Amino acid sequence: MFKQISIIGFGLIGSSIARGIKEHKLCDTLVCVDINPKTCKKVEELGLADETTTSLSEGVKGSDLVILCSPVGTMKVVGDAISDSLQPGAIVTDVGSVKGSVIETLNDLLPKGVEFVAGHPIAGSEKSGPENGMADLFQDRWTILTPSESNSIKAVERVTAIWNALGARIEIMDPKHHDLILGITSHLPHLIAYSIVDTANNLEDDIKSEVIKYSAGGFYGFTRIAASDPVMWRDVFLHNRDAVLEILQRFDEDITALQRAIRRGDGDYLFNVFSRTREIRRDILELGEAAKPNSKPR
Amino acid sequence: MFKQISIIGFGLIGSSIARGIKEHKLCDTLVCVDINPKTCKKVEELGLADETTTSLSEGVKGSDLVILCSPVGTMKVVGDAISDSLQPGAIVTDVGSVKGSVIETLNDLLPKGVEFVAGHPIAGSEKSGPENGMADLFQDRWTILTPSESNSIKAVERVTAIWNALGARIEIMDPKHHDLILGITSHLPHLIAYSIVDTANNLEDDIKSEVIKYSAGGFYGFTRIAASDPVMWRDVFLHNRDAVLEILQRFDEDITALQRAIRRGDGDYLFNVFSRTREIRRDILELGEAAKPNSKPR
Repeated sequence: MFKQISIIGFGLIGSSIARGIKEHKLCDTLVCVDINPKTCKKVEELGLADETTTSLSEGVKGSDLVILCSPVGTMKVVGDAISDSLQPGAIVTDVGSVKGSVIETLNDLLPKGVEFVAGHPIAGSEKSGPENGMADLFQDRWTILTPSESNSIKAVERVTAIWNALGARIEIMDPKHHDLILGITSHLPHLIAYSIVDTANNLEDDIKSEVIKYSAGGFYGFTRIAASDPVMWRDVFLHNRDAVLEILQRFDEDITALQRAIRRGDGDYLFNVFSRTREIRRDILELGEAAKPNSKPR
Repeated sequence: MFKQISIIGFGLIGSSIARGIKEHKLCDTLVCVDINPKTCKKVEELGLADETTTSLSEGVKGSDLVILCSPVGTMKVVGDAISDSLQPGAIVTDVGSVKGSVIETLNDLLPKGVEFVAGHPIAGSEKSGPENGMADLFQDRWTILTPSESNSIKAVERVTAIWNALGARIEIMDPKHHDLILGITSHLPHLIAYSIVDTANNLEDDIKSEVIKYSAGGFYGFTRIAASDPVMWRDVFLHNRDAVLEILQRFDEDITALQRAIRRGDGDYLFNVFSRTREIRRDILELGEAAKPNSKPR
């Protein structure tokens, strides 16, 4: 499908793509590019790539596809480092959870003759690192592509083809719309989970140890989300600021209304909210497998 | 272990206790008491009890143990209805997620010679109803008992014995302290989950359908919690008002600080919070099975 593919950033997502590419034989040569030599060593031990290098500029030479899997906040540095080494006709794509700012950054930096087709696989785990990747991480999961107007149909088709080969379902979306939807379905839930776990973290030590002990009552699921990679998520919030602040404002209004109802003893209000939230769950379950997260909760 | 046990309120918890009692043969006669005749019919079909009745007062006659499994808000009505029919020496216990207000209510209502030993199994599911109960729901889960000073050691031991027989691990706690800890580990997470799912519910229809479609990014887990029984949870918030409002205030301060950091682009602040929340996860996983929820997420 491709002659040479370079994957930049070999964390959970990068290494999962690599495993899938190897398993389905989607290129002749797979290059692991990671500025951390320990990661390159780990990738060599695990046999996840044909070549490894810590040099971004060396790592993309001769590749017809470059997949950026480093955190959203690194895109400027990475784009700067690779732009002179990309071969004409190469396609660059990414996997970041924010699309608007990434497209803006990379379209400015990449040379003429190289196309950037932005993408985002909705798949993951609270675990990080190449050792936790899975070849089937994207199987039956959505991958959203947010192409620019300048993209050729052929480039979009080639990126679509690789995600299809990894088992993903493809959806095309406007970047700004993607950032709003993901702000609601992913960024806000992560922010809230981080926040509530931090609230618990700030408690007195004796109470905190009991909170940990009795976390099964609901808190447990939040700790799983709040164990996600801190660098990746810091970058998401810095780069999807406007959408996150907008949806956080709505959330704040809604939880304040619940708080008020509790204070006033307004059971009817609570009952009505708690009843209608059940409908969304039913709608999600009706959608089947693709609406479910792929990481196991335990 | 007991001659006759009455279970009042045959939902998920009541029917799970009943299944466990049957499986481990913990009494001669098991009586299902539920004011809803449809529930009694369902219990008869499923063969979960030896006798069923819709009459609270009839249902407790001759029982040496009565387990209250109806929502926390029903305790006054139920206590009123059964107090004249309880036999001297009977033990009454409950499973409610709030302990302070329940103890106050029932200690006032129950006759002399009958002991109320308050309890709370930290186990459950977003599913409701007798058909979803499981005999092993309490296996390796914590059950917290919050006895009053007036309780005899013998009564506490007998309630402990039945939970041990159902596989639970027992912890004794002060009721007020229980309500604070559960306010953090269970009530606040539920309130937040209800709130964020309601925020999504209030979105424009086209956005809402996409939020449902792409819920795998984090939102999914919240919808599971927000599908919990609305009557049970309304009552929890009305009866644990002070502890919930106190911890909600702390949460509000913490998420406002995160909001401010996002607005100001303070990546260091975000990174520090997102890093330290990982520690709690590690602590929980080190505790093993009992700290984990028993309901499957799918």
